[in-house]
Amino acid sequence: MEIYGDKQSGNCYKIQLVCALLSIDYQWHDVDILQGDTQTTEFLAKNPNGKIPLLVLEDGRCISESNAIINFLAYQSPLLPADPFIQAKIQQWQFFEQYSHEPYIAVARFIAKYLKRPLERESEYQAKQAGGHKALSVMEKQLQQTKFLIGDELSTADISLFAYTHVAFEGGFDLSDYPAISRWIKDISEQDNFVAMKN
Amino acid sequence: MEIYGDKQSGNCYKIQLVCALLSIDYQWHDVDILQGDTQTTEFLAKNPNGKIPLLVLEDGRCISESNAIINFLAYQSPLLPADPFIQAKIQQWQFFEQYSHEPYIAVARFIAKYLKRPLERESEYQAKQAGGHKALSVMEKQLQQTKFLIGDELSTADISLFAYTHVAFEGGFDLSDYPAISRWIKDISEQDNFVAMKN
Repeated sequence: MEIYGDKQSGNCYKIQLVCALLSIDYQWHDVDILQGDTQTTEFLAKNPNGKIPLLVLEDGRCISESNAIINFLAYQSPLLPADPFIQAKIQQWQFFEQYSHEPYIAVARFIAKYLKRPLERESEYQAKQAGGHKALSVMEKQLQQTKFLIGDELSTADISLFAYTHVAFEGGFDLSDYPAISRWIKDISEQDNFVAMKN
Repeated sequence: MEIYGDKQSGNCYKIQLVCALLSIDYQWHDVDILQGDTQTTEFLAKNPNGKIPLLVLEDGRCISESNAIINFLAYQSPLLPADPFIQAKIQQWQFFEQYSHEPYIAVARFIAKYLKRPLERESEYQAKQAGGHKALSVMEKQLQQTKFLIGDELSTADISLFAYTHVAFEGGFDLSDYPAISRWIKDISEQDNFVAMKN
């Protein structure tokens, strides 16, 4: 099994973390977006959308989109219970992540951490703050009621949300206002086989 | 089973269409976002993210996020084959829809159809065009190779992408440049029990 990714990307980290927690072996290929690695003919043949992460199975079949990949990897593991309602709730949190969380928190982090807040993107950076706090509030409300996002047990929903939430401070989001999220981050980082994201 | 939604929303239409194709009965509640219906205490108790569509089961449990809802409704039906690789590919297309398609095509359509392209959003409308065409190109490439997005059979991935693609012209996207997408739209609209989206 081969994974194409960038270890500083939260979306790619989701896959590293699931593989670590489930002791899944893989071969990693570093991909540099800024060097155009995802726009080559060879890469576009594997993912026509030209994005990482990308999973290539031993028979050559490919899966893209981080949350689809981790649900595939976690199939029949404790991270993805078979119950259809639980699976729907996991997907609910993952679609929330891609639509209502990542476009604010990950993008603000990218502008701050990688681009160093250039003047021409300062208004965009500021505009991302409200949406990011709204997403964090939705998570906080759930995590005040349950240990993990779907209940008492860690699932792929937690991995999906953990990736960018635990580094949200790099996008200007102060998590000390979110005690339940802070407790949940600690709980996840204390899991057996946990691996940290590359800084 | 109760569904809260707006029949002119593509995200809500996905659920109507799956229920029609699978002959699932439901009670529909019209929700008016512009009147604040999704921000009431009662609604936020059901979906703290304050968005439609929302599915409420007979026992009171709730699921939000359109793609999570339709996969739940299609469980064990021909629209959602049990094979884990196929399910991963379905989710891949659905995450693509929420991240790389809907934010361009649905938002451009909203600005044009509902807001009538006001001057203060014209640059945003124009900026959405490139991303929308990129998403359509990715779909076109797949649909040149297979009848539906994951192969020979209709799945929830097609429903997810059909919702805003078949009305993309309302956001300024000319589909005559995409013959495979146009053929696919015709194939879906000729399915038994198909229902059209409210105009």
